[in-house]
Amino acid sequence: MISTFHFTGYGMYLPPRIETAEDLSPKLNRSVDWIRSRAGVYERRVSSIDVDEMAAIAVKQAIGKKNKPDLIINASGVPKQVIPDTSIFIQKQLGYSGIPSFSVHATCLSFLVALNIASSFIKSKQYCRIVIVSSDRGTCGRNFNEPESAALLGDAAAAVYIEPIDSNSGLLSYSMETYPEGAKLTEVRGGGTNRHPQNPMTQNSDNLFSMDGPKIFKMALEKVYSKINQDLKQNNISKKDLKLLIPHQASAKGVSAYSKIGGFKKNQVMNIVSSTGNCVSASIPLALVMAYNNKIISKNDLIYFIGTGAGLSIASALLRL
Amino acid sequence: MISTFHFTGYGMYLPPRIETAEDLSPKLNRSVDWIRSRAGVYERRVSSIDVDEMAAIAVKQAIGKKNKPDLIINASGVPKQVIPDTSIFIQKQLGYSGIPSFSVHATCLSFLVALNIASSFIKSKQYCRIVIVSSDRGTCGRNFNEPESAALLGDAAAAVYIEPIDSNSGLLSYSMETYPEGAKLTEVRGGGTNRHPQNPMTQNSDNLFSMDGPKIFKMALEKVYSKINQDLKQNNISKKDLKLLIPHQASAKGVSAYSKIGGFKKNQVMNIVSSTGNCVSASIPLALVMAYNNKIISKNDLIYFIGTGAGLSIASALLRL
Repeated sequence: MISTFHFTGYGMYLPPRIETAEDLSPKLNRSVDWIRSRAGVYERRVSSIDVDEMAAIAVKQAIGKKNKPDLIINASGVPKQVIPDTSIFIQKQLGYSGIPSFSVHATCLSFLVALNIASSFIKSKQYCRIVIVSSDRGTCGRNFNEPESAALLGDAAAAVYIEPIDSNSGLLSYSMETYPEGAKLTEVRGGGTNRHPQNPMTQNSDNLFSMDGPKIFKMALEKVYSKINQDLKQNNISKKDLKLLIPHQASAKGVSAYSKIGGFKKNQVMNIVSSTGNCVSASIPLALVMAYNNKIISKNDLIYFIGTGAGLSIASALLRL
Repeated sequence: MISTFHFTGYGMYLPPRIETAEDLSPKLNRSVDWIRSRAGVYERRVSSIDVDEMAAIAVKQAIGKKNKPDLIINASGVPKQVIPDTSIFIQKQLGYSGIPSFSVHATCLSFLVALNIASSFIKSKQYCRIVIVSSDRGTCGRNFNEPESAALLGDAAAAVYIEPIDSNSGLLSYSMETYPEGAKLTEVRGGGTNRHPQNPMTQNSDNLFSMDGPKIFKMALEKVYSKINQDLKQNNISKKDLKLLIPHQASAKGVSAYSKIGGFKKNQVMNIVSSTGNCVSASIPLALVMAYNNKIISKNDLIYFIGTGAGLSIASALLRL
């Protein structure tokens, strides 16, 4: 047991505007069937408000009538701007002032990294009312000339409010591995010092999302399943002990592999990718919040998060609710 | 005492190319005296290698002949690119694979935020050989039409290797506050969803560093000194007990204020700004590493970090070496 805590608030924001495979088809110059079968995304949300506003809506829902948090961690994939970090703008939207806030960045795994950090802060008693929020607006950076990845992305934000508890709820185990040999498999090359806007080499496509799904799937498959087996063994549990596996919603193929190849029952794997797409960092907490709202999970359940992120990184976390 | 640990390795990278006030004068259309008196920066380093390579040099120095770290935290202000996060590229430069790595972003305070996270990880026994590295190449994003901020920035990287210890060394106290009413005082508006490169509203200046030094100084002054007094009181120590105060090297005026207004002796305040400039996130760890290398600090000394970052955020940390 790393640390005992529980989620005392859950919040999410799904933009009202739905973009269907039919809407997307002419932009990608691909058929509706192609989009549905390749990406497995039937519809996704497209936000007209920016990541900080999206995040603030989710955070307000998670806070509800509880006290202000004593720490806000932004755990998102793409920032609002380079400086300041996005947590500042989220706090501004919330109307707060004085609460420490910062950002954690591990692309699609940012939420899990932040959850592990929050868990350690609770253990060391540094903070005791922590909000983690992930908010991504991937549709802004779609490259319509790369239909495979452009068909996947959707917008969403999701947040949790975490407080210590004197019970057996909390983070039972966590692990992460990073393999930089996969650095080129998922990229937005612009926005920093590499392909700076001032650099004459920088092209428009450098500022757009690029992903080699098949190569990632291949690289991740073996590593992901060895991590699952290792986590189950280390925690002395079997697959059937898990109430829900909440994977990063990378693609329909990626999510369904947990049941098709991984040996989990289909209803043990949270699968929202067909209706929300890959929401980058927000996918994992969004799936958690939707599972909670739909009463798929409840107090004392064992849940297991796992996913891959640009890097290539792999992270997993076993929790008792 | 939050957690007991010690720095078992220190590393830094100062690019070999020196840019003096004389070199910068024609670019800014300001006199050498203006640059020296306004910014207080007589010379700064300009890097010809990117942030990940700079970081890797500092990390290698910090690791020396010790074991590979079990966690790498990139704590920098401006990323190499939007996706993946910079820690991936640093690990790639180091020739490692499999070590968990992620990025923390709180602009100039990133190192202190990461230090606090590392401290909690050591307390919760999640990791026990942690490398934190800050690497910034602010000269890439200088706006020569804003000479006040352009005269300040310099490039550097610095790293520490942290291991647990069974003694009274480690983090005695840490605190951070964020005031988003100062969000517009230090900005690079581009690089994210706000002023996305695809957005026709985005202008070249949106991708460059902008800072309102005098307003930050005014906003920070009262908050910084109240934090210092609070930290001293809370830890039951007085100014003279501190071997060294290591401030963020925001500007010559900002650094000298700790002695001129704050009541510390001049030799108690680490001041490297005239020779390195404001190196964004790297300023604080660079000042630490230079203090160590120059034998200004040694085992058992009480040292105190304090600084402001874009946000506006303020953070402080009291350590026993």
